[in-house]
Amino acid sequence: MQSVKPILSAVLLALGVTAISTTAVHAKAIETQRHNIELEVVTEGLEYPWGMDFLPDGSVLITEKTGAVVHYHFDKNEKHTLSGVPEVVYAGQGGLLDIVVDPNFAENQWVYLSYAEADPAGGDGQSTAVTRARLDGHKLVDQELIFRVAPKFNSRFHFGSRLVFSPEGHLFITTGDRYHHMDDAQTLDNHDGKIVRIWPDGSVPEDNPFVDQAGAMPEIWSYGHRNVQGAAIHPLTGKLWAAEHGPKGGDEINIAEAANNYGWPVATFGIDYDDSIISDKTYVEGTVLPHYYWVPSIAISNMIFYTGDAFPEWKNDLFVAALRGSQVARLDLDGDRVMHEETLLQDDTKARLRDIAQGPDGFIYLLSDDKNGALLRIKPAE
Amino acid sequence: MQSVKPILSAVLLALGVTAISTTAVHAKAIETQRHNIELEVVTEGLEYPWGMDFLPDGSVLITEKTGAVVHYHFDKNEKHTLSGVPEVVYAGQGGLLDIVVDPNFAENQWVYLSYAEADPAGGDGQSTAVTRARLDGHKLVDQELIFRVAPKFNSRFHFGSRLVFSPEGHLFITTGDRYHHMDDAQTLDNHDGKIVRIWPDGSVPEDNPFVDQAGAMPEIWSYGHRNVQGAAIHPLTGKLWAAEHGPKGGDEINIAEAANNYGWPVATFGIDYDDSIISDKTYVEGTVLPHYYWVPSIAISNMIFYTGDAFPEWKNDLFVAALRGSQVARLDLDGDRVMHEETLLQDDTKARLRDIAQGPDGFIYLLSDDKNGALLRIKPAE
Repeated sequence: MQSVKPILSAVLLALGVTAISTTAVHAKAIETQRHNIELEVVTEGLEYPWGMDFLPDGSVLITEKTGAVVHYHFDKNEKHTLSGVPEVVYAGQGGLLDIVVDPNFAENQWVYLSYAEADPAGGDGQSTAVTRARLDGHKLVDQELIFRVAPKFNSRFHFGSRLVFSPEGHLFITTGDRYHHMDDAQTLDNHDGKIVRIWPDGSVPEDNPFVDQAGAMPEIWSYGHRNVQGAAIHPLTGKLWAAEHGPKGGDEINIAEAANNYGWPVATFGIDYDDSIISDKTYVEGTVLPHYYWVPSIAISNMIFYTGDAFPEWKNDLFVAALRGSQVARLDLDGDRVMHEETLLQDDTKARLRDIAQGPDGFIYLLSDDKNGALLRIKPAE
Repeated sequence: MQSVKPILSAVLLALGVTAISTTAVHAKAIETQRHNIELEVVTEGLEYPWGMDFLPDGSVLITEKTGAVVHYHFDKNEKHTLSGVPEVVYAGQGGLLDIVVDPNFAENQWVYLSYAEADPAGGDGQSTAVTRARLDGHKLVDQELIFRVAPKFNSRFHFGSRLVFSPEGHLFITTGDRYHHMDDAQTLDNHDGKIVRIWPDGSVPEDNPFVDQAGAMPEIWSYGHRNVQGAAIHPLTGKLWAAEHGPKGGDEINIAEAANNYGWPVATFGIDYDDSIISDKTYVEGTVLPHYYWVPSIAISNMIFYTGDAFPEWKNDLFVAALRGSQVARLDLDGDRVMHEETLLQDDTKARLRDIAQGPDGFIYLLSDDKNGALLRIKPAE
């Protein structure tokens, strides 16, 4: 992978680089508690990028919320837009959202996309759907819809949509409560405010927790969530960790285990955006307290457990990207236990950070949520 | 307990109260995440107060590092200085340090004092010692030395000295590494950098972890500590939690269990005051990582688990007082797990907070470390 010379841009300016010289500008050096790092712009011109995942050849697929998938090749610094992407409802928080590459991509070429889907029956509602398709050059072919949130509502908010594979090959899909339907998160007859678990072909695993419960959606893995936009598998335990946006306060990280109720909206550490009380309780019997939470909110987008070799002191730490404060929270973990929180990058970029991923090179990649969005990279300082 | 009208003082000025009126000035109202509180000055004129504990009648005993014990009666707003206090070495971090009232005080009238003691053999060394005496009116009588750190060193630093009773009636005493003898913390032939456990009469419990180990000091409970100035018993588990000062960075909270090695100085999240490396390792096999830690340091003095009724949303939370940033860190706990940290009081007082205690009224009391030190109180806002 050749060195990428960042071009001058709004993001670069926000990085504090003011000298107008494309050759002199490479990266911003930043001292952190355990590593000295550099933050650099890999490429720009991404329209509200939302999700990304790497292919076995080291290139990366990036979704643009407006409805495109960009295939970026680092070595040639080339972008290609894929054909065959499903039609999405781009409005409010909806659009083309996450992307994940099949763990067996080399054999099957599947990639999975989540997005806000219009009502195929012609109604005015939308909901999160997940499709898969095979990547053939710069085309997506053999498209199959594998999951659709029911019911469809006319709401532009809280689509959840993060996609992550379990070590056993299940696909976890996170959803949201659609804001206007928060009480749905407490009942099992719908997919709002849930984490669901399916097989990659859309079939329901026989050991899902509610498959035998009458009236319950069989895909449900856990419930009582608000808007889960972060998900990652703990590298040592293999368990799913999920991050959700609280309202005003109360962003949560949960260890999302089968059948658990995470309390939204009957228990929360947050209040509503207009300062009204959603629940006066932070805990209700039968629900699970967050593993860790933030007040005030940082607006968590996605998170990763770092497992690479480029930053040895960060091994197995949790990195939580945020839309607010342009920060990444590093949670120093001992197993599941949060020992310490360090705030990274704050004030180093004014970007809303929409996604975070670990590259095959062990570097950490970020997407900035902007009309002229960027792929950013954290490297060890030279 | 009658309402206490704070007198105008440096502390009050630091509280942001600038109007010169002793009748109009009562308390500063502060909004926090779970409770609206008031911070008020109960009494001043305490010379470098270090430790405090409450008597069954609701009055409080406060040590002054310079060598006195002050008995403060809230109802009469009266201070009495006790006679019969042992002679202390007041120099550097040494002096008269902690005080704890026997859980069976009503029957036996014992109080326990920790302090920097001169070498009784006439050498130039000092070390932490603990004595007990019965409180008879405003006199301490029947004094008995029950523990003495060995060996004595000529060092003005790191005396540890916090005293706390276990639910079974043991007395835990925390020590320090004396700064110049940090390696002592890793060996069991001395009391430096240890937590020790004795019976209140000074005898060694038969089930202490190293009683049968040749060459080991039998009082040792845990080791590998730097300077433990905070200690409290978890109200649900009955286990000892201990807080220690890191060097530059690396203040730690540990669940201090029998025979454990907490790693100092072979593993630390801090560096030395001159920025030199003490250890390049944060973890070494055979040692225990901190339960929670701070970088940069907040300079932890003492901590309590809150168990009162005045602040119901704070039940069983851990409150960690700090010398730096005049702050109290509230750790919202679910059992042992830290779910969230809230910083309280920062910028509300310029005081170095030396001790924290829960009063029999359920209010939270603090001591400010100053020549004109104060007893402060956190109450619910009216």
